Amino acid sequence: MKLSIIAEILNENYYGEDVDIHRVGSLDTEYENAIIYVEEERYLDKALSKNPVAIILPHGLVPEDIPYIAVTDTKLAFIRLLELFPMRREYLGIDKNAHIHSSAHIGDNVTIMTGAVIMEDVEINDNSVIYPNCTIEGGARIGRNSTLYSGVIIGEECVIGDYCIIHSGTVIGSDGYGFYEKDGKIIKIPQIGSVKIGNNVEVGANCCIDRATVDITEIGNDTKLDNMVHIAHNVKIGERCLIIAQTGISGSVTIGNHVTIFGQAGIGDHISIADETIIIGQSGIHNDIKKPEVLFGTPARPHREQQKIQAAMKYLPELLKRMKRLERKIRETSDDSQDSNN
Amino acid sequence: MKLSIIAEILNENYYGEDVDIHRVGSLDTEYENAIIYVEEERYLDKALSKNPVAIILPHGLVPEDIPYIAVTDTKLAFIRLLELFPMRREYLGIDKNAHIHSSAHIGDNVTIMTGAVIMEDVEINDNSVIYPNCTIEGGARIGRNSTLYSGVIIGEECVIGDYCIIHSGTVIGSDGYGFYEKDGKIIKIPQIGSVKIGNNVEVGANCCIDRATVDITEIGNDTKLDNMVHIAHNVKIGERCLIIAQTGISGSVTIGNHVTIFGQAGIGDHISIADETIIIGQSGIHNDIKKPEVLFGTPARPHREQQKIQAAMKYLPELLKRMKRLERKIRETSDDSQDSNN
Amino acid sequence: MKLSIIAEILNENYYGEDVDIHRVGSLDTEYENAIIYVEEERYLDKALSKNPVAIILPHGLVPEDIPYIAVTDTKLAFIRLLELFPMRREYLGIDKNAHIHSSAHIGDNVTIMTGAVIMEDVEINDNSVIYPNCTIEGGARIGRNSTLYSGVIIGEECVIGDYCIIHSGTVIGSDGYGFYEKDGKIIKIPQIGSVKIGNNVEVGANCCIDRATVDITEIGNDTKLDNMVHIAHNVKIGERCLIIAQTGISGSVTIGNHVTIFGQAGIGDHISIADETIIIGQSGIHNDIKKPEVLFGTPARPHREQQKIQAAMKYLPELLKRMKRLERKIRETSDDSQDSNN
Repeated sequence: MKLSIIAEILNENYYGEDVDIHRVGSLDTEYENAIIYVEEERYLDKALSKNPVAIILPHGLVPEDIPYIAVTDTKLAFIRLLELFPMRREYLGIDKNAHIHSSAHIGDNVTIMTGAVIMEDVEINDNSVIYPNCTIEGGARIGRNSTLYSGVIIGEECVIGDYCIIHSGTVIGSDGYGFYEKDGKIIKIPQIGSVKIGNNVEVGANCCIDRATVDITEIGNDTKLDNMVHIAHNVKIGERCLIIAQTGISGSVTIGNHVTIFGQAGIGDHISIADETIIIGQSGIHNDIKKPEVLFGTPARPHREQQKIQAAMKYLPELLKRMKRLERKIRETSDDSQDSNN
Repeated sequence: MKLSIIAEILNENYYGEDVDIHRVGSLDTEYENAIIYVEEERYLDKALSKNPVAIILPHGLVPEDIPYIAVTDTKLAFIRLLELFPMRREYLGIDKNAHIHSSAHIGDNVTIMTGAVIMEDVEINDNSVIYPNCTIEGGARIGRNSTLYSGVIIGEECVIGDYCIIHSGTVIGSDGYGFYEKDGKIIKIPQIGSVKIGNNVEVGANCCIDRATVDITEIGNDTKLDNMVHIAHNVKIGERCLIIAQTGISGSVTIGNHVTIFGQAGIGDHISIADETIIIGQSGIHNDIKKPEVLFGTPARPHREQQKIQAAMKYLPELLKRMKRLERKIRETSDDSQDSNN
Repeated sequence: MKLSIIAEILNENYYGEDVDIHRVGSLDTEYENAIIYVEEERYLDKALSKNPVAIILPHGLVPEDIPYIAVTDTKLAFIRLLELFPMRREYLGIDKNAHIHSSAHIGDNVTIMTGAVIMEDVEINDNSVIYPNCTIEGGARIGRNSTLYSGVIIGEECVIGDYCIIHSGTVIGSDGYGFYEKDGKIIKIPQIGSVKIGNNVEVGANCCIDRATVDITEIGNDTKLDNMVHIAHNVKIGERCLIIAQTGISGSVTIGNHVTIFGQAGIGDHISIADETIIIGQSGIHNDIKKPEVLFGTPARPHREQQKIQAAMKYLPELLKRMKRLERKIRETSDDSQDSNN
């Protein structure tokens, strides 16, 4: 692809020779005929050391002896660039080795690959793509323009919105964990609810999202889950949340909009999390979060407070010794003083 | 379903009109023609606000203007109710696109769905249900009345009991993690044991249960695992244990009966956990637990002790300052005193 | 198998009767005609109590009344022994129900089982084994003598080396988690890189290894991952690393050679970990580790330091009380002293 074409797509000008671009490069590896994006001036030398044929940089920066495109938002330009050099192959149509129940409703331009199983009354809407060995159980509904990568499992009656991406191995619609102990027996509470995933949601690989007991476990529009996230039954997650890998959300938790939860964090059951909250990785949330804060630790505290405590902990063993010394001293002083009083 | 029929099944009386019930309702969502169960009086108003056509409540409570059933154990009644309105579709029979090895033994009324692979010498006993795209490897044995949801993988020679439920994406019988380092090489210790799951066991989605090195990794009767639980090789888990999502049990751990382990907890290898122990979420168990306790933290302590420490930690940074102040004061006093002694 | 044959294979002598060995036994369970390995003298009685027909023990130990083999390295002998009594069945050839794209390159002696899907341009080299229901997406490459157990998913263009073992349900090549927030929108950063797994690598069940944004996520030779490990995009892991279950490695982390990370640990993004580092379970690494250390805690500290802090924490609540007492005492003393000065 010509540099001039890329500039046109980015709606910016290019400078220097109209070179041929074969791929997107990086600051770490040298590739032939690559274009590299430079986010700030300090990365420019490193970028040039990888011998790109062209670079993308912010307006104002002018590199020497290399063709370039100057842009307003380098990150956005980078994204457009990546979109121009896609890695994924394109597929279209229903593979003859896909197993599609006759009662299923399949929209226009739907792709269903080998070994995928589409059960009774499933609905897959226009332009959606189902990779090999997926299972979409009875009555589930996939919106338009969504992609389910290989081996995804969508449980009965669950609903996936439009423009969603579900990565491989993820299970949506497993039973919520509900048991009742009576007279030494553990009785299963049937989970007859379902799961509803909004639009533009991305779910990472090997995640689990459980169906609600009676109602619906919900993930709001534009929320993005990383790999191996666990969402228990009856959870409601708002819009534009970012939930990083291996986080677990317990039953009946309510999470507001634009909440960020870093990896391996855990939220206790029935907890409510305010909009815009940020939870640092490995934190454990034991109480409702009523106003947006940055939280850290198990149980979690405000981040600053936790950091001060963590810094102070270094001195704790020594503190015990100093305390002992002081107590002895006081005792001696007090004895002395009694002595002198006598 | 008529209210009178439900009352009959619950072995209780109904009061008011014999209305038609279409589904189970909840305190959170309004549904048409729903019946809602009210566990305690304080939930009654909320239940009524969802306009159910009938309610189930404890004996002694009498709602106004609405048909109801009064019961002794509302939770149990709720469970029976959920069973009356199942979400899951019923299937029966062997799909023509299931791949069943000729040497496999398939019992009566077994259901095997599309794309499931049943390998050599596998035994699937009466009334069990195998969802699509499951793989049951050579020599594995599934008991009676068990359900394997979509994409479950049962490794060679592993045994699943009767009335078990294994949720989607779970892997039973992966190799235990065993390596031997010698002269800078890492040599695999072959894992030739297997896994045995008792009766009435439920295993959540995307769990892993590793086969033993030589013997058998065992999960006792009536134990219930949530999603993404990791059980390493040679582990023995007793009966009626509850193990919540994302918990990890290291190799050769022994867990007694009726142990409860909340989410994201970790148990170090070769540890033994007494019956009735309760481990709070995210705890790390580094030592044997010899008598039943509630434990919390990493490394775990008795819950009360840990809570006191957590509460005290808030004051730790301040404590350092107070200590410094005091030490200075003592020094001054002592100097003064020396002065005055002179 | 005759004891004499085993001795020959181990290149050691046997003593006593040349008995028939039917299986490898253990210290925990009695089996018929088993051989048990005894690592140290103190295990000898326990081994004998399981009535083996023969034992393997270190040179120098001489058991009474039982045939035995004396060896130099018992652990290594145990491994050879386990290899002599494999649990896994052997398969060979391409199943007629495997779905192999005509453009795929399949080497000699490759095994591909039922329901496996091999897509365009995939390369599977000599002697590799693909279990049922695996999906190998377009352009992926599997080396020689590697095994992919049931349901493994290898994403487009990803590369697996020689002599690798990938356990069931693992996903290699899911998209890295990359989003850009602009004007309240969350824009996906396409992940066009891939994953490269070295030789002799073992990856546990239900792991996720994400493809890089532009470059390659790399796992070095001889590295061994346990179950449910999460490796984010752009990560580079060196050789001979041991990474235990449920650990999460964030984006762009660089891990040296022979690093050991115990279960449920987390490494923050862009962090670099020195060769030979050891990270205790559940730790959270927030900063670069520049020299090999044993680390523990969140945030992690040197293990010894953390242990001292943990021990001291027990006294923290009491310390607060002692501080109060002391402050009161000083105040009183000071008042007294002022009094006496008056």
